[in-house]
Amino acid sequence: MNEYLQAAIEEAKKGYAAGGIPIGSVLVHQGKIIGRGHNQRVQAGSVVLHGEMDALENAGRQPASVYQQCVLYTTLSPCPMCSGTILLYGIPKVVIGENKTFMGEEDLLRSRGVEVEVVDNAACVQLMQQFIREKPDLWNEDIGV
Amino acid sequence: MNEYLQAAIEEAKKGYAAGGIPIGSVLVHQGKIIGRGHNQRVQAGSVVLHGEMDALENAGRQPASVYQQCVLYTTLSPCPMCSGTILLYGIPKVVIGENKTFMGEEDLLRSRGVEVEVVDNAACVQLMQQFIREKPDLWNEDIGV
Repeated sequence: MNEYLQAAIEEAKKGYAAGGIPIGSVLVHQGKIIGRGHNQRVQAGSVVLHGEMDALENAGRQPASVYQQCVLYTTLSPCPMCSGTILLYGIPKVVIGENKTFMGEEDLLRSRGVEVEVVDNAACVQLMQQFIREKPDLWNEDIGV
Repeated sequence: MNEYLQAAIEEAKKGYAAGGIPIGSVLVHQGKIIGRGHNQRVQAGSVVLHGEMDALENAGRQPASVYQQCVLYTTLSPCPMCSGTILLYGIPKVVIGENKTFMGEEDLLRSRGVEVEVVDNAACVQLMQQFIREKPDLWNEDIGV
């Protein structure tokens, strides 16, 4: 498997092991991972640190020129917040582990010129479906349902 | 002036006084401010805590039913990240201090059923224009330019 998606899955598994929401992400700049993260709703009580946001936050302050050469890998289709953040920073490409569990704003991203690749990875699906079976209320909170 | 917009402006001024980006926000639930915040790029080195995001973060974890009865007040038109977050949580109304300095995703919000009110407040415009004259590079970084 792609090493970057694998790194995002490892982040998701860290989140699951900590009792959190198992969604992970890595930000890759010219082949190098510059930020790794996973959903922090449970661990940090955060309502903004989805996996993608946590990866961006951990990458630190970057100039636009860096974001514009990045690929964001995420285990799950990005929600409106994370998709808006991709648009804000002009990240040109997103690789998504799966979108069966949750369909994010892929159409909006594509309509704004972002390249969206969906891998349909079985491990990503399995992890989310197990989590949702175990903690459906937590999942609903995370997606505003 | 509307007391909630005034509270958002006070947040923006706090940010300016701390050497940060002067954009503030408050989240109001049934007439009560449940979260206040301002842009934390300089103060916390954050790339995700715009004013609106900081207000939501400071409001803490809330059920969807609370967000769906909230109004978000912000001194500046919300960027794609903040607009996506409004959509994620189903916040039905946004009151914006001004959109002359920066036009955010107001059309997207309206197209998804969010009520968007632009106040065109002179204090909000003045504060941003002064800041951008003083620190144009910091402003560009914040909006991914």
